[in-house]
Amino acid sequence: MKIGIVGSGNMGGGLGKIWAKAGHQVIFSYSRDENKLHQLAAAAGENAKVGTPEDAVAQSDVVLLAVWVPFLEEALKSIGSLDGKIIITCVSGLQPDFTGKTIGIATELKTSVAEIIQQFAPKANVVEAFNITFAEIIAAESRQFGSDCPSIFYCGDDAEAKTIVADLIRECGYEPVDAGELIVARSLETLATAWVQFAVASKLFPNLGLQALRR
Amino acid sequence: MKIGIVGSGNMGGGLGKIWAKAGHQVIFSYSRDENKLHQLAAAAGENAKVGTPEDAVAQSDVVLLAVWVPFLEEALKSIGSLDGKIIITCVSGLQPDFTGKTIGIATELKTSVAEIIQQFAPKANVVEAFNITFAEIIAAESRQFGSDCPSIFYCGDDAEAKTIVADLIRECGYEPVDAGELIVARSLETLATAWVQFAVASKLFPNLGLQALRR
Repeated sequence: MKIGIVGSGNMGGGLGKIWAKAGHQVIFSYSRDENKLHQLAAAAGENAKVGTPEDAVAQSDVVLLAVWVPFLEEALKSIGSLDGKIIITCVSGLQPDFTGKTIGIATELKTSVAEIIQQFAPKANVVEAFNITFAEIIAAESRQFGSDCPSIFYCGDDAEAKTIVADLIRECGYEPVDAGELIVARSLETLATAWVQFAVASKLFPNLGLQALRR
Repeated sequence: MKIGIVGSGNMGGGLGKIWAKAGHQVIFSYSRDENKLHQLAAAAGENAKVGTPEDAVAQSDVVLLAVWVPFLEEALKSIGSLDGKIIITCVSGLQPDFTGKTIGIATELKTSVAEIIQQFAPKANVVEAFNITFAEIIAAESRQFGSDCPSIFYCGDDAEAKTIVADLIRECGYEPVDAGELIVARSLETLATAWVQFAVASKLFPNLGLQALRR
C-alpha cells in the first residue's frame, strides 16, 4: 500500500518505519524538524521517502494522522483533499504533557476527534486505531510480550477500510480488535487517554501492553 | 480470612461467593433486598452467612466495599469502626446507569473514591481493586479466557494489606498487577469507568477481559 504519514513524531515515525520495512511505500511528512524527517526516511529504508503533507496525502491510499490534538486543525488544513482516502487517526484527547483537557464523560460526549476528522473530510473513510499503545512499544524491536501480543482496538464506518486497517495493525505485530462504528471513538479516545495516564501514574509505563481477552 | 461484604450486589455478591467457596468466612450485608442476601449466602455454601453491615465489618479482617458511588456515604456511616481493617474498594465513578458523573481528568483530579474512604477511616488500610472487570465475568464459572486470565490492577499504601489483597485477587482467578500507591486510584478509577463505557459502546461487553502484558 501507499501510506502517507502526517505527523512523523514518535507514533507516526515508528509506525511508518514498520510499514516501510514490511514493504509498503511510505511518505513521512509534518514534523517541525526537517532533519528528523530525512533521518527517519533513511532509517526506514528504500521504501520510505520524505514529502510535504500535501504530497503524503496525494500520493497515498492510506493516511496516518498522528499529530497532537492542538495541531490537528493546522494539519487538516495543510493536506489538501482527503476524498477517497483511508484516514487512520490515533489522535486522542491527550496533550503533549500527558494531561487530557478534552477527556469527558464518554457516554455524554457529543463527538470525538475521529468524528471531527470525518466531518472535515466526509468523502474519506476514517478509522480510529493505535491509541491504546505507546510509542516506546512501537519503537521496540518487537511488539511481542513473551508469547502474547497486545491488542489494538479500531473503529470506523466503512467495512473495507476497516479490513485494510486491521491488516496494517496485524503487520505491526498487534492483534486487531474490531470495536464497532466510528461513534465508538468517543469512548475509545477517552479510554486511550485514561490508559496512558494510568500507565504513567502507576509507573507501569512504558512496558505495558493491553491484551483484550475474548471468549 | 474473615471477609465482610458491604454491598452484596452483582460485584460484592459474586466475589463473596468465590471467596466462601475457596474456604474464607464471608458475611454478606447491605442489600436493599433482605431475601437476596439469604439466597446469596445459601448459594455460597457453609462458609457464608448474612449479617448487618456493622456485623460484617466488626467480625472481619477484610471488608469489601462494593456499593455504587451514590450510596457510598450512607454505607460508610452505617458500618462502625474500620480501624485496623483492610478495606478493598471497587467503587469507581461509574453510576448505576453506566454514565460516569465523577470521571475527570486523571492528572488533574484532586482525589479519588479510594482516598475519600481512606480519609474517612484513617486507621484502615484501603486497597483499590476489582474495578477493571465485570460482574458477569465474576459470576461465570471461570475467569479463564482459554489459557489466559484477566488482570486486576490494585493500589494502596500498606504493603501487607496489598499482599493479602493480591492473594484474594489470585484466588478469584485473576492475575494481580501492583499499580502502586493509593493516589494512583485517581487514574485507576478513571480508567475503570472508561473501560466499562468503552466495553458497552463497542458491544464487546461483557465477554471482555483486560490482560496487562509486561516485559
